[in-house]
Amino acid sequence: MYNHSELKEIIEKALLNLSYNTEALKLIEPVKYILSIGGKRLRPILALMACNLFNDKIDDAILPAIGLEVFHNFTLVHDDIMDQASVRRNYPTVHNKWNVNQAIISGDVMAFIANECFLQTPANNLLRVFRVFNKAAIEVCAGQQLDLDYEKAAIVSQDEYLKMIELKTAVFLAASLKIGAITGGSDDKDSDLLYEFGRNIGLAFQIQDDLLDIWGNTKVFGKTSGGDIVANKKTFPLVKALEIASASQHKQLQKLLSFKDPDTGEKVKNVICLYDQLNIKEITETLANNFIDRAFSLLKKVSVDEERKKELEYITSSLIGRDR
Amino acid sequence: MYNHSELKEIIEKALLNLSYNTEALKLIEPVKYILSIGGKRLRPILALMACNLFNDKIDDAILPAIGLEVFHNFTLVHDDIMDQASVRRNYPTVHNKWNVNQAIISGDVMAFIANECFLQTPANNLLRVFRVFNKAAIEVCAGQQLDLDYEKAAIVSQDEYLKMIELKTAVFLAASLKIGAITGGSDDKDSDLLYEFGRNIGLAFQIQDDLLDIWGNTKVFGKTSGGDIVANKKTFPLVKALEIASASQHKQLQKLLSFKDPDTGEKVKNVICLYDQLNIKEITETLANNFIDRAFSLLKKVSVDEERKKELEYITSSLIGRDR
Repeated sequence: MYNHSELKEIIEKALLNLSYNTEALKLIEPVKYILSIGGKRLRPILALMACNLFNDKIDDAILPAIGLEVFHNFTLVHDDIMDQASVRRNYPTVHNKWNVNQAIISGDVMAFIANECFLQTPANNLLRVFRVFNKAAIEVCAGQQLDLDYEKAAIVSQDEYLKMIELKTAVFLAASLKIGAITGGSDDKDSDLLYEFGRNIGLAFQIQDDLLDIWGNTKVFGKTSGGDIVANKKTFPLVKALEIASASQHKQLQKLLSFKDPDTGEKVKNVICLYDQLNIKEITETLANNFIDRAFSLLKKVSVDEERKKELEYITSSLIGRDR
Repeated sequence: MYNHSELKEIIEKALLNLSYNTEALKLIEPVKYILSIGGKRLRPILALMACNLFNDKIDDAILPAIGLEVFHNFTLVHDDIMDQASVRRNYPTVHNKWNVNQAIISGDVMAFIANECFLQTPANNLLRVFRVFNKAAIEVCAGQQLDLDYEKAAIVSQDEYLKMIELKTAVFLAASLKIGAITGGSDDKDSDLLYEFGRNIGLAFQIQDDLLDIWGNTKVFGKTSGGDIVANKKTFPLVKALEIASASQHKQLQKLLSFKDPDTGEKVKNVICLYDQLNIKEITETLANNFIDRAFSLLKKVSVDEERKKELEYITSSLIGRDR
């Protein structure tokens, strides 16, 4: 069995060796750039781990794993344009370093470079794997659409929020695991279990990300605390608070959301104070924990030795900040 | 055998029946819009015609043909953002009717809807067809990159110009024909001949498009004469003129290109006058005709009865404005 750092090395090497058959060098520069500035390589690693559950040989899973990573970075390049984000992984975003047109066209070609990886996947699994990928790719676009819609919406329900993060984040983690499992030779039951495991982990991960922005340890997680609050981002805590607030709390929260003072520290403090009154931290933690528990109970049902699941349990536990 | 209008009807019907499995309705609205505002449906029709050369049944070619059309419209949606075009086929472009973010994300999903069409293609041809498509898709992105590069370049050579239009336009017409041929059951020799036929027709078509903008009949072709000249677009006539002009003509042309007067009629007249001195119209026509002659000599070699090629000859002849 491969451990996390061995798999990451395999991925990094394969990404470096990726060949680009094109006569337009400028098209590929931003592709190489975005693929070179780091990232956890979570999706390809999950794919290789899922493959490794069923098979000691993981070679056949490498190309689809790279396809997943290229697709993921394609979404980042285009999402960063849409979100007008200037920094990604501490480096300038592609549209910031080059320009919007370059980010559009270099993003576009990554979709077809990802296709190319799937088209080169060994024939016995190619079509099943490609179909799982493509379904998830369409869902990721739908998730990004919902994210754009909800930015402008006055009210977003808990169900709508969960559907959005499911499509935007969770299904692609799920698909990565399923693709790895298929490539490793799993049966449908096990690959579906791993899909559901990944979907639940993805939901928990996104909800915890919302939580950490507010109550997280800045030093450990490297994020500025309260950035989502400053930006009025419709995270789970805000969605939930707006849902359960009394009329007067609702009014108070709306007033804080319309706060334009540059002293954002005051806004963050007051919003958190209101969240505390509403028990938002506990409600959010409970929801995330429910998804995590469900995920691990699904993983238990996968019909391979518990011993083989250790590495996958370890990486997902550390991902969601839970020691097991 | 099917004629042009029967094939167009089949395509229109299949486009209307295309199913979109997504929970984000707003994502799909622009997709339906761009697919509904017309267009010649040239690529899917060429695919069906190529299939029909070898096979009386064309059903298996319909899904890949639709995939080609969806991909083509994906490139239009994103190209229109990059070119800041506000009108397409006499309707507002997607980013104009909605906004740039919507055009990016709805464009993106079209790439995967195109994939879905290829993934549903009958299994015996699926992989060959998908690989031809994906190679061409990457080349189209490269062509768009070169187009963006050349806009900013001081000098573009004839070879560079031809490479750009080959990648941006010709290879996708070529791939459409090859995909149709494969689906119809052709052998490699014939599908490659049709690819080369399409590539040459595509080159001729693009060069003639440049020619018509300057010397075309406005009433017949529905384009404003000289638009490319006003915009200093690096079309074949301009590329060639800059290449063969004497030092003094070169200076004159550069002066006209830097012309900022709102009376564009004067600029157009003077540029055309210079082109006439340089014999640009004849040079351009000769080049286009060489590609056309080459295309038709390749089509002759395709091993099916000449009678079956009539419809394909007819549509390509009318496309390039040549009566045969």
